[in-house]
Amino acid sequence: MAVYTDITEAELDPLLSRFGLGAALTFKGIAEGVENSNFFLETEAGRFILTLYERRVREDDLPFFLDLMRWLAGRGFPCPTPQADRNGQMLQRIRSKPAALVSFLNGVSVSRPNPRHCREAGDGLARLHLAGEGFEGRRENTLGAHTWAHLFEGQEASADQLKPGLAEAIAADLKTLAAIWPTGLPSGVIHADFFPDNVFFVRGRFAAAIDFYFACTDALAYDVAVCLVSWCFDPNGRFKPESARALLAGYEAVRPLQPAERAHLGVLAMGAAMRFFLTRLIDWTSTPAGALVKPKDPMEYAAKLAVFRDPEARTALAALCHDA
Amino acid sequence: MAVYTDITEAELDPLLSRFGLGAALTFKGIAEGVENSNFFLETEAGRFILTLYERRVREDDLPFFLDLMRWLAGRGFPCPTPQADRNGQMLQRIRSKPAALVSFLNGVSVSRPNPRHCREAGDGLARLHLAGEGFEGRRENTLGAHTWAHLFEGQEASADQLKPGLAEAIAADLKTLAAIWPTGLPSGVIHADFFPDNVFFVRGRFAAAIDFYFACTDALAYDVAVCLVSWCFDPNGRFKPESARALLAGYEAVRPLQPAERAHLGVLAMGAAMRFFLTRLIDWTSTPAGALVKPKDPMEYAAKLAVFRDPEARTALAALCHDA
Repeated sequence: MAVYTDITEAELDPLLSRFGLGAALTFKGIAEGVENSNFFLETEAGRFILTLYERRVREDDLPFFLDLMRWLAGRGFPCPTPQADRNGQMLQRIRSKPAALVSFLNGVSVSRPNPRHCREAGDGLARLHLAGEGFEGRRENTLGAHTWAHLFEGQEASADQLKPGLAEAIAADLKTLAAIWPTGLPSGVIHADFFPDNVFFVRGRFAAAIDFYFACTDALAYDVAVCLVSWCFDPNGRFKPESARALLAGYEAVRPLQPAERAHLGVLAMGAAMRFFLTRLIDWTSTPAGALVKPKDPMEYAAKLAVFRDPEARTALAALCHDA
Repeated sequence: MAVYTDITEAELDPLLSRFGLGAALTFKGIAEGVENSNFFLETEAGRFILTLYERRVREDDLPFFLDLMRWLAGRGFPCPTPQADRNGQMLQRIRSKPAALVSFLNGVSVSRPNPRHCREAGDGLARLHLAGEGFEGRRENTLGAHTWAHLFEGQEASADQLKPGLAEAIAADLKTLAAIWPTGLPSGVIHADFFPDNVFFVRGRFAAAIDFYFACTDALAYDVAVCLVSWCFDPNGRFKPESARALLAGYEAVRPLQPAERAHLGVLAMGAAMRFFLTRLIDWTSTPAGALVKPKDPMEYAAKLAVFRDPEARTALAALCHDA
């Protein structure tokens, strides 16, 4: 939500000429994305977002992300399209930081999605999965199930500080997840962060997805589970089954889930809640007081994790698929 | 440079219907203006900036600012035009904060203006002054010359902390300014903060001015002096006479200065440097470490003030007018 790097005409003018974009009509830092600096740029040639990669995004991963967005956009999926400069180069360097220029997309995100939004989000995610078929790039999910026990090491005291007894519960959850985590589910390109703030709507219809900087190769149904935990809870942490039903219906109208994917939705959702709890816990612990970006509350995901700690709740998820 | 208030569809949707703007196509927090929260909003009806007034801007002053921008825009001056809702109301309230929707303007600001930019800025400022003629609203300059001695009270220790001996120099400058500050110069609507970041260019030509929240009724030549101190120094604090000459030539091509205005440009520039030094000093002292917005360095304006402390430098300014 913050612009970190200040860009002046000294950086902008060479960029404009490298891309042959004509004169700048508008250039404004925008509050989009937590990890990077983003700028809205309009020139005589069109509208773009300029992104400077500030931290956490590994520079070695950028070619994967840029190639993927270009592939998806080429298959008709509405996502930012990286632009190539006159030398065919997508990856740029500005103020010694990696940078990219991508197409601008219309749409607004919603902070309180209703079931109709969830249906549209499910539709959009399934279209992303289909568009990703045939993409040859591969990237391991560096925040996948195999990393979680390790991520939690050394965080026990912080967890107990948030809520006494939480560390023990998390340790037990990690054991459960390791024991029942599914393998062999259909795999492919996943967004891995398909949260409401990364999805744009126009007139209530899915319009675009942004922020592909966690994208990787993993189980497609895990991406659905990330969606379920991020779209289908009310602000008080209560699960909204009608939203989940709508999301799954929207998804399955485009890409029907296989029986094994449905059967494991519950544990995948428990895992998705664990993944976001853990990274938020780490950010919470490591962010100095008074920092520019306020870390998100890990307890939101601790509560979601608690919902899917219940085996019955996990089983109930599969039953929300429309013809189950 | 920061978005303070988060706006969601719960605030946005009622606003769109109050203004009859159709559906939102884009809504993004932008890093523009230091005092307020600004959002870029595009709807089916056009492009706008939504401003939430966060602090420092007195709510009682908002009708003056909004009326002024509407007046100037109506006279053809390129500034944000406040929009009226279906009830004819410009001033809105969002999350219990005063807010206004204004037209979006193309253009980019420059951080290192060259003499051609300065000429354009002078042209733009003179056009603003002419467009302001006949505007009936009046607002005292609440940061005008009569306030400076009072602003400095209690800041002596902070000044000396920045540079030993600075407090004494400032006290002497305040005495000088009180003794030689001109009265009776042509007065009218001034912008009072016509800094490079508040001026937009397209293809190097003056395109628009924004941020009218210091506008008031004062000597027009003082506005020129604010321009001289904010546009005509290099990053090392050296005065750039060729930039000042270009700025004055651009201004006088539209509105020639009267002899008394020219004669007093030096003391007006000294006063303008004092005004920005004092408010920056106060912000510097009162901003807690680690605050969201980093205060600007008061020493930049202490150095500019030192330039015009020299009576010869003050006299030399008048000689930069093109037929002087």
